[in-house]
Amino acid sequence: MQRPTIAILGASGYAGVELTRLIALHPGVELVVAGSDRWTNDSVEARIGVSLPKLKYAAPERALEHAASCSAVLLATPAEISHDYVPRLVPTTTVIDLSGAFRLRDAAAYARHYGFVHQHSALLAEAVYGLPELGRARIAGAKLIANPGCYATAIQLAIAPLASLVTGRWIVDAVSGVTGAGRKATEAMSFAEVAGDVHAYRALRHQHAPEIAQGIGGPVTFVPHLVPIARGILATCHAQLQPGADVAAAYHAAYANEPFIELAHNADDVSIHHVVGTNRCRIGWTIVGDELVTIAAIDNLVKGAAGQAVQNLNLALGLPETTGLVLRSFHP
Amino acid sequence: MQRPTIAILGASGYAGVELTRLIALHPGVELVVAGSDRWTNDSVEARIGVSLPKLKYAAPERALEHAASCSAVLLATPAEISHDYVPRLVPTTTVIDLSGAFRLRDAAAYARHYGFVHQHSALLAEAVYGLPELGRARIAGAKLIANPGCYATAIQLAIAPLASLVTGRWIVDAVSGVTGAGRKATEAMSFAEVAGDVHAYRALRHQHAPEIAQGIGGPVTFVPHLVPIARGILATCHAQLQPGADVAAAYHAAYANEPFIELAHNADDVSIHHVVGTNRCRIGWTIVGDELVTIAAIDNLVKGAAGQAVQNLNLALGLPETTGLVLRSFHP
Amino acid sequence: MQRPTIAILGASGYAGVELTRLIALHPGVELVVAGSDRWTNDSVEARIGVSLPKLKYAAPERALEHAASCSAVLLATPAEISHDYVPRLVPTTTVIDLSGAFRLRDAAAYARHYGFVHQHSALLAEAVYGLPELGRARIAGAKLIANPGCYATAIQLAIAPLASLVTGRWIVDAVSGVTGAGRKATEAMSFAEVAGDVHAYRALRHQHAPEIAQGIGGPVTFVPHLVPIARGILATCHAQLQPGADVAAAYHAAYANEPFIELAHNADDVSIHHVVGTNRCRIGWTIVGDELVTIAAIDNLVKGAAGQAVQNLNLALGLPETTGLVLRSFHP
Amino acid sequence: MQRPTIAILGASGYAGVELTRLIALHPGVELVVAGSDRWTNDSVEARIGVSLPKLKYAAPERALEHAASCSAVLLATPAEISHDYVPRLVPTTTVIDLSGAFRLRDAAAYARHYGFVHQHSALLAEAVYGLPELGRARIAGAKLIANPGCYATAIQLAIAPLASLVTGRWIVDAVSGVTGAGRKATEAMSFAEVAGDVHAYRALRHQHAPEIAQGIGGPVTFVPHLVPIARGILATCHAQLQPGADVAAAYHAAYANEPFIELAHNADDVSIHHVVGTNRCRIGWTIVGDELVTIAAIDNLVKGAAGQAVQNLNLALGLPETTGLVLRSFHP
Repeated sequence: MQRPTIAILGASGYAGVELTRLIALHPGVELVVAGSDRWTNDSVEARIGVSLPKLKYAAPERALEHAASCSAVLLATPAEISHDYVPRLVPTTTVIDLSGAFRLRDAAAYARHYGFVHQHSALLAEAVYGLPELGRARIAGAKLIANPGCYATAIQLAIAPLASLVTGRWIVDAVSGVTGAGRKATEAMSFAEVAGDVHAYRALRHQHAPEIAQGIGGPVTFVPHLVPIARGILATCHAQLQPGADVAAAYHAAYANEPFIELAHNADDVSIHHVVGTNRCRIGWTIVGDELVTIAAIDNLVKGAAGQAVQNLNLALGLPETTGLVLRSFHP
Repeated sequence: MQRPTIAILGASGYAGVELTRLIALHPGVELVVAGSDRWTNDSVEARIGVSLPKLKYAAPERALEHAASCSAVLLATPAEISHDYVPRLVPTTTVIDLSGAFRLRDAAAYARHYGFVHQHSALLAEAVYGLPELGRARIAGAKLIANPGCYATAIQLAIAPLASLVTGRWIVDAVSGVTGAGRKATEAMSFAEVAGDVHAYRALRHQHAPEIAQGIGGPVTFVPHLVPIARGILATCHAQLQPGADVAAAYHAAYANEPFIELAHNADDVSIHHVVGTNRCRIGWTIVGDELVTIAAIDNLVKGAAGQAVQNLNLALGLPETTGLVLRSFHP
Repeated sequence: MQRPTIAILGASGYAGVELTRLIALHPGVELVVAGSDRWTNDSVEARIGVSLPKLKYAAPERALEHAASCSAVLLATPAEISHDYVPRLVPTTTVIDLSGAFRLRDAAAYARHYGFVHQHSALLAEAVYGLPELGRARIAGAKLIANPGCYATAIQLAIAPLASLVTGRWIVDAVSGVTGAGRKATEAMSFAEVAGDVHAYRALRHQHAPEIAQGIGGPVTFVPHLVPIARGILATCHAQLQPGADVAAAYHAAYANEPFIELAHNADDVSIHHVVGTNRCRIGWTIVGDELVTIAAIDNLVKGAAGQAVQNLNLALGLPETTGLVLRSFHP
Repeated sequence: MQRPTIAILGASGYAGVELTRLIALHPGVELVVAGSDRWTNDSVEARIGVSLPKLKYAAPERALEHAASCSAVLLATPAEISHDYVPRLVPTTTVIDLSGAFRLRDAAAYARHYGFVHQHSALLAEAVYGLPELGRARIAGAKLIANPGCYATAIQLAIAPLASLVTGRWIVDAVSGVTGAGRKATEAMSFAEVAGDVHAYRALRHQHAPEIAQGIGGPVTFVPHLVPIARGILATCHAQLQPGADVAAAYHAAYANEPFIELAHNADDVSIHHVVGTNRCRIGWTIVGDELVTIAAIDNLVKGAAGQAVQNLNLALGLPETTGLVLRSFHP
C-alpha cells in the first residue's frame, strides 16, 4: 500500500533537519520532497546522515510546486515565508506550519509581534492550533494546523489545567537553548558569547506571550532567557492558589492518558535532561502555603517543534498519534 | 609600615581560592595564614598559581590558632565550622564569615534552614550583615561581619531600592553556575549531568529566602536554578508597580555613587558576561504597564563571596573600599 | 514467534543505559533482565524514559542468575566484574562483554593494564574480538565476544586498512568526552573542573594501547585527552606514507560496503557532530608530501560501546547486522 | 613623571579587548588611544568595564594618526591591516604587531599562507620576533616587534629547548578555544555548532607551521583542532629521543629563571585550567622508552597574544618584564 507522501519546506534549519530525521524514520509516511535554498541539490543523506539514499534537497520554488501534490506539507520556514506559502498549499494538501504565521487569530497582532502585515485573515480563522493535549479533537482531519511555539507549548501544558485553581496573573520565567533561535550566523549566538553567559531577551515583549494569552484566555507575564545549551526549554511558572485548590488532581485529570506528558515528583524533579531528544513534556510542581511553582520541560526541537508537528501530522492523517515518536532520549 | 595581617580559613574551596587570589594581589594587607585540610603543607603558589612563594597551607586547627592573632580573619568554611570558629576568634580579631552561620538574627531559623542548632545567639545579635551598598555605616569598624549569600546579594541589590514602589510580593527566579554549590565530588555536579541541563532546586525552600526576607522586611518567592556555567548568578525579579512609581529615580538615588553597581539600559542588557571576574553588580529593568521586571547579575565567587568579603575587609580595616577590587573581567 | 531474550548487566552506567535504550527499541530481541545495584527495584521506564512498562532493575546476583537462561547477555560491568561473571555465563548463553576483561590475548597483560590478575586464560583464547568491520566472520555464532574499547574502535578503523602503506610507528592523539570515563562522582569529573579545560591523561600508558597494538600487529604511540563534551571521540592519527601509497584506494577497498563507515572529503571534514548518537565511524584523511594524517570520529557510547555491542549481538544471533541501529543523530 | 603613552589599534577584537584590559591596569604606561571601527565614539569603560572614564574608541584612521605620536603602538588588527599600518608607524614610534604580518622573514610566503602579497621586505628583515624566552636580547629596544602566533608560542616553548635531543620530525596536535579565531559572526563558530564538537582544521596546512619551522629551523607536522572552550591552547608534541637525552635538564637549563614558564610533573599535569587568565606557559613531558610526548598550555589571548605583547612592550620600553602581568587566574 502506498504510504502518504510528505514534503518538508525549510528543511535545512534546525527544526527542518529534526523534522527530516523524524520523517525519515517514520514507518507510516514517505518523505518525497525536502526544500532548501541552502543545500539545494545536495544529498539529504550526505548532509544529515539519514538513510534516504536518493533524496536531494530541492530549490524552494520547485519544492513548493511538488509539495502541493503531496499528502501533507510540513513548513519549517520563517513566518513570513509560511504566510506566503500557505495560501498556495491549502487548496490541495494538508499543511502543518511550524512558524507563528497562523497561530494568532487576530491578524492585527502580526504587525506588532512578527513585524509583517498579515494578509490572510480567513486562513487565520480556519487554522487549528496544534497542541493535541489541549485540543486534540479539532486537529484530526484539519487542513491547516498551526504548530505551537516552543515556549508556548511548555507554558500552556504547565498552566492550562490549573486555570480555575489560581488567582491573579501567571508569572513565567523560562530558559531556552540556542537552537530556539534557529540556525544563526550572528556574533550574539557565537560560542564565545553564549558560553558562560545567561541573559534575558525580549523581556515582557516576546511574541509567544500573545500566543499563550490567546490559549489560556488571559494575560501572562513572560521573560525568556538564553542559556548555554543546544536544546531544551524549562519554564518556571508562578501563581497564587485559591483556597482548597487540588493541583495534583487537576493535572492527573488532564493528563492521565497522555502518552507524551510525564508528571514528576515536584518542581525540582524536572530537568531538560529528562526530555531532550524526546517528544515528552515533563511537569512538576511545588506548593508552599498558597504559592505554587510549576515547571515544565521540553526539547524545543521535538515537542517544541518537529516532534509536535509529527504528532499533529499523525492526527491529521488518521495515524496512531505516537507513530514515529517513540524516541531514544539523548542524555547524557 | 606593617600591613594588616590576614588569615583565610577554608582556603581550598572555590570561594577560598578566589579569596586567596584577591588577597595575594591586595596592596594593603598581607596574607600570612591559609588553612586547608585538603592541601595541608602544599605550597599555595604551586596549588593556585599566585605569587606567594613561601606560604604553605596549614592544617585547620593550627591555622585557627595562628588566625586568632591576625588583624583579620576571613572564614570560607562551611556554616557549621564557622559557627564553631567564630566564638574562638572574635575576642582577638576581626572576623568576616562567608558562610550563612551569622546572617540570620533568629537563632531558631538555623535548625530549619541550615540543619544545625545555633548556639551563639549573642553573636547573632552582634554580627553586622555585610552588604555595603545597603548598610555601609555599620560595617566600618565591625568585629564580626556576616558576608551575604550570593543569591541574597544579587536579589537585595535589585529590589531593596524599590521597596516603597511596588505592591504585593516579589517573585524571583534566579540561575547560578556550579561553583555556587562549592567544590563537589558528586554525580549531580559531574560534567555529564550538568552540561546541556537546567533544573530548579530547593524551589520555594532555599536557605537564602529567609536571609532576603530579613533584609527587605517581608517575604519573597524564590526559585533557584542550576545552569551549565562555572560562575555567575542572574536573578530575575518580578513585582507590580504602584501608580506613578519612578524606578529609575529610585535606583539612581540609591546607587549614583556606588563603585560596584552598574545600571544597564533595560532588563535584556544584563548578562553574566558583564560582571564575571569582577566585584560589580549590574542591574537593568523593563516596565510594561504596571509590570516590572528587574534583573541583577553578579559573579557568585566575587561580589557574591570573596570580592564582597574583601570589600567588607577594607571597610572594617579603614582602607579605601575599592582597594584590591579593580579587577580585570573574564569575558570571553 | 518468540524473540531472543536479552539480559543487560551493569544497566545503570552510561554504556548500560545506552544499551538499554537501544535494546528497548530493537525490533528483533526482547529485553527481559536489567541488572543494577544502583537502581535495584526501580522501574526502567521511570529511570530512563524507555517504553518498557513492566521491567524493573534487578539486584546484580539475581540478574546474573536470570541472565544465564537468556538467549544472550550484554555485560556493561567493570572489567573485574565481567572477569568473574563470564565463566558463569558462557556455559549456557552467548556473552558480549563491553569491558576490557576479555580483549587481550595475553593474560599477563591484565595485571599491568587493568590492575587485576586474570584467571581465565582459556576464555581469553576463546573470546572473539568484536570489531565487525575488521573481522566479521569470526563473530557470527561466537559465544564470547569482547566488545572493543572506544578509542581502540576509532583508531583501528582509521589505521588498519593502511597497514601496508606506511612506514614507522603510528602516532595518535585522541580526545574523548566525559562519558568515556563512565558515571563518576569525582571532583576531577565535576562540571567546574571539566568545563573550559583540556588535558591529557595516561599519556603513553593508556590501557587501549596494547589492545590496538594487538589488533594492528605492532606498537602505537597513543595520548588520550579529556575535552568538555559529553559524548564522542576524535582520533588524529599520523604516519609517514610509503612511496606510491594509495590511501583512498585502501579505504574504499576496505569499507565500500560497510553500513557504519563514512568516508569524508579530508581530515578537516570529520567532526564528532557527524556521528554523535549514531553507530557510525567517519574517517577522513589529508596528505602533504609523505605525511599522512587520518582522523576518525565515533560516538563513544554507540559505536564505541553500546551500538557496537548490538551490532555484535545481531551477528551472534544471525540477525541482519543493522537491526536496531538505524539511529537518529543528535546534532545539534 | 609622565608615563609612556600607548595606542591600541583594533581594540574591539578579542585580543584587542584583552590588551585594553591589561594596559588599563598596567602601572607603568598610559593608554591614550583605542582605535575601533566597531565601537567608534563609545566609552571604553562602558564597553568593557575597565576604569578609563574618559577614553572613547576612535575611528581607525584618526586613531592611526594619533598613534604615530605615542611612545608605543600595539596593533591588534588583521594581518593585512597591520601590513599597511606598520610602515606608517615605525618612523615615529615603537610598534608591536599581534598579527602575522611581520613574523615570516620570507616575503614570498605571505601569498601562500596569508593570502596577500607582502610589500615590505625591508621591514620583514628588520622586525624582531617577540618570543622573549627564546630571544629576549633582540627585543629590548626593538622598534618593530612581531608578536608570535598563539600556537607558535606554545609549540616553540615546548620544543625549542629539546632541539638537539630528538631525531626526526616533531609531530604536533593542538587544540584551541574559539577566541583563537577572533570575534566571528559565522555559523561555524555558533554555539549550536561548536558545543559538543571537536574537529581539525587546516590540517597540515595551518599558517603557524611555517612560523614554527622558521623558529626551530626545521619542518614540523602540525594539526590544529577546535574544541568547545572560550580560551586556551594545549599543544601535544611528539618526538623520538636520542639515546641518553636528558629532557629535564634541557628544560631546566632553558627556563630556570623564566617568570612565565611553569614546569609540570609530567604530560598529564598540564591543563588549560592551569594557565587561563595568566601570561604563563606550563610544560610537562612523559617519556616511555625513546618516545617523548611534551605538552604545553597557554591562554591564547594572554601568553598567546595580549599578555605576550605587554611582555614585549615592557622589554621594548625598558620596564621590568613582568610589570602588569602578575595576573589573577580564572579557574574555575
